Amino acid sequence: MKELLAAARGEVPADLVFKNGRVFDVFNGTLVEETVAVAGGRILGYGDYEGKTEVDLAGRVLCPGFIDSHLHIESSMVTVGEFARMVIPLGTTTIFADPHEIANVAGVEGIEFMLEEGRKYPWNFFLMVPSCVPASPFEAGGAALTSETLKPLAEREDLFGLGEMMNYPGVVFGDDETWRKLELFRGRFRDGHAPQVVGKELNSYLLGGIGADHEAVSAGEALEKIRAGMYLMIREGSAARNLNDLLKAVTAQNFYRFLFATDDRHPEDLIAEGHVNFLIKRAVAGGCPPETALRLATINAATCFGLRDLGAIAPGRRADLQVIDDLKSCEVQEVYKYGVLVAKDGKNLFPVYPLKKGKMGKTVKIKAVKEEDFHLPAGNLFRIIRLLPGQIVTGQEIKSLRVEKGQVVNLVEEGLAKIAVIERHQATGRIGLGLLAGLGLRRGALATSVAHDAHNLLVTGVNDTDMVMAVKEVARMGGGLAAVCDGRVVESLSLPVAGLMSEKPVAELAGQLRKLEAAAREFGAAIDSPFMALSFLALSVIPALKITDRGLVDSESFQQVPLVVTEGGD
Amino acid sequence: MKELLAAARGEVPADLVFKNGRVFDVFNGTLVEETVAVAGGRILGYGDYEGKTEVDLAGRVLCPGFIDSHLHIESSMVTVGEFARMVIPLGTTTIFADPHEIANVAGVEGIEFMLEEGRKYPWNFFLMVPSCVPASPFEAGGAALTSETLKPLAEREDLFGLGEMMNYPGVVFGDDETWRKLELFRGRFRDGHAPQVVGKELNSYLLGGIGADHEAVSAGEALEKIRAGMYLMIREGSAARNLNDLLKAVTAQNFYRFLFATDDRHPEDLIAEGHVNFLIKRAVAGGCPPETALRLATINAATCFGLRDLGAIAPGRRADLQVIDDLKSCEVQEVYKYGVLVAKDGKNLFPVYPLKKGKMGKTVKIKAVKEEDFHLPAGNLFRIIRLLPGQIVTGQEIKSLRVEKGQVVNLVEEGLAKIAVIERHQATGRIGLGLLAGLGLRRGALATSVAHDAHNLLVTGVNDTDMVMAVKEVARMGGGLAAVCDGRVVESLSLPVAGLMSEKPVAELAGQLRKLEAAAREFGAAIDSPFMALSFLALSVIPALKITDRGLVDSESFQQVPLVVTEGGD
Repeated sequence: MKELLAAARGEVPADLVFKNGRVFDVFNGTLVEETVAVAGGRILGYGDYEGKTEVDLAGRVLCPGFIDSHLHIESSMVTVGEFARMVIPLGTTTIFADPHEIANVAGVEGIEFMLEEGRKYPWNFFLMVPSCVPASPFEAGGAALTSETLKPLAEREDLFGLGEMMNYPGVVFGDDETWRKLELFRGRFRDGHAPQVVGKELNSYLLGGIGADHEAVSAGEALEKIRAGMYLMIREGSAARNLNDLLKAVTAQNFYRFLFATDDRHPEDLIAEGHVNFLIKRAVAGGCPPETALRLATINAATCFGLRDLGAIAPGRRADLQVIDDLKSCEVQEVYKYGVLVAKDGKNLFPVYPLKKGKMGKTVKIKAVKEEDFHLPAGNLFRIIRLLPGQIVTGQEIKSLRVEKGQVVNLVEEGLAKIAVIERHQATGRIGLGLLAGLGLRRGALATSVAHDAHNLLVTGVNDTDMVMAVKEVARMGGGLAAVCDGRVVESLSLPVAGLMSEKPVAELAGQLRKLEAAAREFGAAIDSPFMALSFLALSVIPALKITDRGLVDSESFQQVPLVVTEGGD
Repeated sequence: MKELLAAARGEVPADLVFKNGRVFDVFNGTLVEETVAVAGGRILGYGDYEGKTEVDLAGRVLCPGFIDSHLHIESSMVTVGEFARMVIPLGTTTIFADPHEIANVAGVEGIEFMLEEGRKYPWNFFLMVPSCVPASPFEAGGAALTSETLKPLAEREDLFGLGEMMNYPGVVFGDDETWRKLELFRGRFRDGHAPQVVGKELNSYLLGGIGADHEAVSAGEALEKIRAGMYLMIREGSAARNLNDLLKAVTAQNFYRFLFATDDRHPEDLIAEGHVNFLIKRAVAGGCPPETALRLATINAATCFGLRDLGAIAPGRRADLQVIDDLKSCEVQEVYKYGVLVAKDGKNLFPVYPLKKGKMGKTVKIKAVKEEDFHLPAGNLFRIIRLLPGQIVTGQEIKSLRVEKGQVVNLVEEGLAKIAVIERHQATGRIGLGLLAGLGLRRGALATSVAHDAHNLLVTGVNDTDMVMAVKEVARMGGGLAAVCDGRVVESLSLPVAGLMSEKPVAELAGQLRKLEAAAREFGAAIDSPFMALSFLALSVIPALKITDRGLVDSESFQQVPLVVTEGGD
């Protein structure tokens, strides 16, 4: 500290000095022409300093690193390390990651795995403790995080807070187990997830001490949540894109209560659009002053989370910095973490550490699957899941069908496919079987080990042989995606890390995903991102009809329902 | 909690409901016409609620209680209880008190005493741990708070953080003991005090993790401190009045980084002007939008201190509320703490608890004082303290004087008075003796046990007999102020609590102070608030020449200096 002080007083040279540029002062929301000094990984401050290394900004802008306030790395289908390599060159130096997906597969071990990986890279890696694993009692994932399990986690300094509390009915109606979890994290940050929760329901939810929300979809909802004391995360993910609507809620009076979150960004969008830098660009394009957009991505997030040493170029704060060409275009040219150059012109300057998959490489465990497993029961009135384009909610339909020897006569002509969820964590052999409308498959089968939230093995197809083969291919890879047709694996993508993440770089992964999607389209799939769409069909907390390894779930009445509608059965 | 949830859901009546008014939404900075419900001392939120008690606001404004971000209760010369009775009806429901003065008298016991008293009253009483006791090595107060002493205090939940770090040279130059104190409070709030500390000095100071400052006197200084990441407390005390100047620094971009502090408010100003409500009115009069001024007094302070359940009318927050007539005039009509009406129309509705003075009632301990103690040494060139009107800095003058038998010949005609500081904590008999210019006394003597920061017994006068009597009177009262002339106590005011605080109500105290000041004026004192001016003459960290029980201190060179200037001595 004495050395740092001597440098701050200007008696000895700083480690690093940025000269001849404009510095973004997040507090006053202005650019200032000042020299900035860094030593010991910390900002020393503004002033006429000399440095061991001096960076000539040549009129460019020095800005704090960006903060992503809420995201699931697993949604990008890459490892933590590959994610770091993707987003750090884009200026992201801090992320708040909720390892909700891997926790559903591997519980505390999954959380530890993410933490261990995340710590290796030059960013602030804040890990939230998933609050809702499993998502519902109808899902058998690889682990359950009860309040007892969370107790030791809540006391740890290396975990940041409680991850998005999705069980808002549990909070609102005073469910004991839910409240035990909230209580464990008293005094720490408790993140929210309250889609369209407003009015008295919102009031009740907030008694749980929830600090922020990223689920608002309209300006009115956002303003109500701001008024109720929440910080409002403007989310622009891959599926849920709320930025343009929420921007309307940001005023000169309340701008400091908004921040940015990407939530779920798929590999192809990371490549094509970017990360937090994309949200800023989009906000500016939507009319938001760049000074405001940049603050959402920096100091506002730091303030929301109570982190006094982040989010600004100010004495004592972490020297997480970036050089951008200009406030408006926001092209990231150099990124510094703790004053060390870690990325330049889109290229990483930090090492990739070998991944230690350990148990995370062996999470797909199933009993041998055979064609008979996909034979439908007798009946004539069947309950059908209808996939709705671009939505994670589904429809529920009842349809009269002719079933012979376990097969729907004219399955394709009826616009249907079989769908099954196979328990893949403990090889119980449990299979939930159903029928799917709206996908458009005319041949083959698609399978995936990414199936929110329990991440069992989900397969859909129009013939049992291909379905069996698709399941086998996913199991063989230790997790992944497969497109099978006429007894041949047409395309596949291995996701050997917890059955959720690839070890490949994002670009390579995105390329392979495109091939899989092309194959699915060739089989007849008539929707965008068919594998993503499939991955939400097992999420039993989202209306209306879903399927898990235990069978169909009516997620409006919150109960299991049979495939064959009783009154119509034979 | 289940009851609270049922009330929030609207299934059972709330405890208290405010209807037909306008509610100040601090986050969006607007008034909304909504009903607000309270239960269990907490805000439930906005909505169509029914309450066991319903308050008809009849168009008036419901607003969160005010927060004073930094103050010394001792400066108001009343007990904690009387202070509470004074400020709560003015809408102040939260104070951050730094018991710096009593700590100089009584150390940790003094802090405990304030805490015990403060807890009894219906406000949020956050106590800071004084960081700089004693103010300098030249002062012998009643206690010293070393880092060893502070260690157990830093771990306590009932103390809030580290009080204003006045020893900025110690921080800037890496003094070990100062940094040990800062380290003890890592992760907690560390308050600042950095008068005109800017540039590299400010950068160095902020490496100590200081969160806020209340010493800025110009808009430029304020903007630099804001830019450096500090929260900026706009202070409008009795002596230091910086509001009008600092208001110029508040912009639409940075308003959320400003808050209010009263620091030191004297009894007469509390009566005549008010407390935080006065700062708001003054800010509004100075052109600050009322919505902004109110936020400085509420949510901004709560955010600065990281208190997520204060400063707003929002679900789950403490129901610290007030009804004001209108945003602009800001007349406080009703005050609620935890949803209970505690003041109405300026009158308190909470009890006064009997004060347990204990040891705090016995802090004035001196050896018998005699006239000879005030006899000056021989010499012809003397060092003189010049009191500067309206300032706490003094001048230093060297003057040739004729001294005979310990007396200055023509003392009054020379415009001088004697001044002495008598150690009063351990009855050591130590006396520092000096000469004072600029007070204007022509007869009599004034004595006080309020003498920053060591609070020894300070006396000034133009004859030794009156000086002795004034000292005796203060000692007899167990502390206080005395004006003595011609061997008679003309006026006196007892401050028996630590020699700093009266047990009387503020109004009565202010009346008695006025009488004392009138007496002083009659003796010839030609400056405003003479006792207050005297109380700063012993503060050896303020330039230029000061006096302590150890004698004169040149506080620019930071060393003791003799009264008789050597080269001129006989």
